[in-house]
Amino acid sequence: MSLVVVGSVAFDAIETPFGKTDKIIGGAATFITLAASYFTKKINLVAVVGGDFLKSDIQMLQEHGVNTAGLQIKEDEKSFFWSGKYHNDMNSRDTLVTELNVLGTFDPVIPEEYQNCEYLMLGNLAPSVQKTVIQRLRKRPKLIVMDTMNFWMNIALSDLMETLTMVDVLSINDEEARQLAGEYSLVKAARKILTMGPKILIIKKGEHGALLFRENQVFFAPALPLEDVFDPTGAGDTFAGGFIGYLASTRDISFDNMKRAIIYGSAMASFCVEKFGTERLQHLSKAELESRVQEFVELVQFEIALA
Amino acid sequence: MSLVVVGSVAFDAIETPFGKTDKIIGGAATFITLAASYFTKKINLVAVVGGDFLKSDIQMLQEHGVNTAGLQIKEDEKSFFWSGKYHNDMNSRDTLVTELNVLGTFDPVIPEEYQNCEYLMLGNLAPSVQKTVIQRLRKRPKLIVMDTMNFWMNIALSDLMETLTMVDVLSINDEEARQLAGEYSLVKAARKILTMGPKILIIKKGEHGALLFRENQVFFAPALPLEDVFDPTGAGDTFAGGFIGYLASTRDISFDNMKRAIIYGSAMASFCVEKFGTERLQHLSKAELESRVQEFVELVQFEIALA
Repeated sequence: MSLVVVGSVAFDAIETPFGKTDKIIGGAATFITLAASYFTKKINLVAVVGGDFLKSDIQMLQEHGVNTAGLQIKEDEKSFFWSGKYHNDMNSRDTLVTELNVLGTFDPVIPEEYQNCEYLMLGNLAPSVQKTVIQRLRKRPKLIVMDTMNFWMNIALSDLMETLTMVDVLSINDEEARQLAGEYSLVKAARKILTMGPKILIIKKGEHGALLFRENQVFFAPALPLEDVFDPTGAGDTFAGGFIGYLASTRDISFDNMKRAIIYGSAMASFCVEKFGTERLQHLSKAELESRVQEFVELVQFEIALA
Repeated sequence: MSLVVVGSVAFDAIETPFGKTDKIIGGAATFITLAASYFTKKINLVAVVGGDFLKSDIQMLQEHGVNTAGLQIKEDEKSFFWSGKYHNDMNSRDTLVTELNVLGTFDPVIPEEYQNCEYLMLGNLAPSVQKTVIQRLRKRPKLIVMDTMNFWMNIALSDLMETLTMVDVLSINDEEARQLAGEYSLVKAARKILTMGPKILIIKKGEHGALLFRENQVFFAPALPLEDVFDPTGAGDTFAGGFIGYLASTRDISFDNMKRAIIYGSAMASFCVEKFGTERLQHLSKAELESRVQEFVELVQFEIALA
């Protein structure tokens, strides 16, 4: 049930209407591995950071069961840095700074002990790097989940389309699905994207929940209505981490189990946004998680006796 | 189990990316009564039209079990007329024409046979008119549901606030809830609105579903992901009509039954948008409705065994 996660491990500086942070740990793979760590402990990280990265942050990941053998530390370079400011409605943000730094030349290294992993989560990265990771695994994993974003559709579409043919599940947001398919209707967009390679498509709609598509099946998971969204950074990655972590821990990739995985992913995301960055994800109890999942059950369950 | 519905009965002229219509029957009370007619046949309409209104349209309503004793026909005046054009994404529209006509001086008449109704649906109208209807019913109905819109918040807020204190359920969309409460978070907005009079709040989110709030309880019903939305006109009223119609037919106003009513309302709304105006609502079979509700069940049902 080993899981390999590739993606950025980075510094974020975040400003929201509730406050601002200095440079804190962020990055897709950080949120993914932390979220997955509440389900499985065999999490193998593939990423790169600079010499400026904090040893204490790496230790924090290790304490959550993350194997950092595949985390390259380039002592003479700087870590990927992103800074952004959220608007009052929290649904839109301005990117203030993007410094690729070590990520600009990222050549992923797969330690021998990562070979034969069953689950692979490709966090948002250049599609060519995602492809390289797949190619460097000698045995194809049982399930490959890929996240991406509109940025790569704009500048690396052919790489993206090629990598898409190699994965099982694609996870993107609604605007990205519309852009990738050239269809406004999400149902039509999903049908089109499911011809591009992935057999399963997850469309994330932020505060409006998430849709799971396979062939002619569709499942919808709501987002939990929250009083306050403190910081949305990493919510999508946290969702993906909960999804793949749950699948890896249950070793069941049926559609019914993916429904459960989406609910667990949504529950993890609902925690993520309660504090800045990874703060809430670093300290979460099993009881809190189960109670949150129970809230999802109560939110959507109804009983109708049909004729 | 008699139901009184007050609201506009009107002419609409609609333009969408799929085509345009001449003047066709529209209006909040039209959509509400048609939707409700699939659940209960004792539907008593309170409305006003002009001499230009089509006898065949009134007959169509009657054939759906709508009692038009409370429909005033002002032969020398013109019916309320609205014309609008939807943008490509169907989520926004421009109002091209609004002619109040008979609605400008609407003085609702309650026929004696409508007295003692158990369910009252106040479709979107001037809050003062909605209040008049409540006052003209000698016995307070078991359940009063009110729809309104931002227009009245802008020009008749004190009337609106007063009418709010007299109803049980308020149905508005997300933007209206935010405006009424002065809160961006829908959870906070709901809490505030539930102190204004209604014990139950429905927040309609269009293609993103609907939320049902009562005290500390919340229920979420998704909208069905559709390939095409042909014409969204009347979807919110159709939703309300399915909701109140289901409640009136089951005579059960528990929170659990309101969950079912919201699902039926959502199902009705999903039909409404498939064709122009009321076209789809005029011809719907029980089997189609049940099959649509089954789609909602499949869309959200999942099984999780919690510890």
